[in-house]
Amino acid sequence: MAPKYTLLYWEDSPLLFEYSNTPFEDNTELEVFSKHLSPQGMHFAPPVLQIKDDESGNDFVLSQTPAILAYIGSKFGLVGSNEREHATINQLTLTALDLSNETHDLHHPISVNLYYEDQKTESKRRAEDFRENRIPKFLTHFETVLQNNTNNNNNFLVGLTISTADLTLFQVLDGLHFALPRRIGTLRKSGEYTRVFQLYDRVKDELKDYLGSKRRRDYSIGLYRDYPELDQE
Amino acid sequence: MAPKYTLLYWEDSPLLFEYSNTPFEDNTELEVFSKHLSPQGMHFAPPVLQIKDDESGNDFVLSQTPAILAYIGSKFGLVGSNEREHATINQLTLTALDLSNETHDLHHPISVNLYYEDQKTESKRRAEDFRENRIPKFLTHFETVLQNNTNNNNNFLVGLTISTADLTLFQVLDGLHFALPRRIGTLRKSGEYTRVFQLYDRVKDELKDYLGSKRRRDYSIGLYRDYPELDQE
Repeated sequence: MAPKYTLLYWEDSPLLFEYSNTPFEDNTELEVFSKHLSPQGMHFAPPVLQIKDDESGNDFVLSQTPAILAYIGSKFGLVGSNEREHATINQLTLTALDLSNETHDLHHPISVNLYYEDQKTESKRRAEDFRENRIPKFLTHFETVLQNNTNNNNNFLVGLTISTADLTLFQVLDGLHFALPRRIGTLRKSGEYTRVFQLYDRVKDELKDYLGSKRRRDYSIGLYRDYPELDQE
Repeated sequence: MAPKYTLLYWEDSPLLFEYSNTPFEDNTELEVFSKHLSPQGMHFAPPVLQIKDDESGNDFVLSQTPAILAYIGSKFGLVGSNEREHATINQLTLTALDLSNETHDLHHPISVNLYYEDQKTESKRRAEDFRENRIPKFLTHFETVLQNNTNNNNNFLVGLTISTADLTLFQVLDGLHFALPRRIGTLRKSGEYTRVFQLYDRVKDELKDYLGSKRRRDYSIGLYRDYPELDQE
């Protein structure tokens, strides 16, 4: 019997489930999971994944985005075909998540315990460096990786097929399109990151049914936020 | 034949090698690795691990601290005894590394491309929240995890033996002792994190030959920095 997956609070999580057609419950009720969360529980912060094993009846609960991605990626056949591909996919997934974390820190450079309004001055300063230096550095990196993967017409980051790394990069780029539309527009038009945006467009097309459905949650004030004062061409 | 490991620029890396008595070369010459680093290379940033396989003669190069830890942890028998322990050790290692990353961001809250002196005002503001809220939250979490692991007198984070998670937590605590000695002193004396500091002391004792040797690099102005103006009891 297939295990039953329940997710809490994972903005970008469902992609791997959707891509591999794996059923899951997307639970946004924090109360259901509060017993698992610190200080009383074993998990520092959401997202949290609960895996209910129908055979043994045992629950297994896991947190930390990269740990969840590694676990389900391996179940869903998205981590390459050998140990080295597996490790490299993990590496590139982590780098894509670093870009995602820096996008979060854009609106919370001082503290997650303060409102954005209370750290707006610092946010604006951070956004300048992020737009000018960090995003291009990340995009150049992924463009180089795609260019060097001659296995498959440079269609995927690692090996011959799509992996957790490609899906994670798609999600981060999608979030950046929402958060910094003007800056991303400029970078796309520059023509310097052709392969990166081709990968983005291809995954978007493959997932269009899901992305157009009600199952895809709208961005609002989570990890990716549309604060026009932080954006610029 | 055993593979030959060469590391570049990994402040806390050698712990797993030392603990498992695995020979490695600790190379701090950036030039040797520059061909691997972005923009021209396949790796976004150090640390980088090169694995030279004596059998095949093939080089394999890996970056991203959590990816390197997962790879070598598995080779060195430090990732638990089954799939779920493995995933949980990955989870807790990532949380310890989050604490480490926040310790870095303490002196670089705005940009890694600016000097500390040019973001000192923001650093002080960030340090206040980090000392008061973040460190206690992380320590409470790890104390809870140790308390709940009744397998082994609460000696390790997961299962019956030491793992990558314990060694990573040790390293982060050691760095925090250097960076914020007054704050860590107060938290230790509070008696609220007994198991966490017992784990720290135990690993420190087990690794005392290495820690007292010239192989252990001194902290200076890397990830962990001793800026007294950011510390407070």
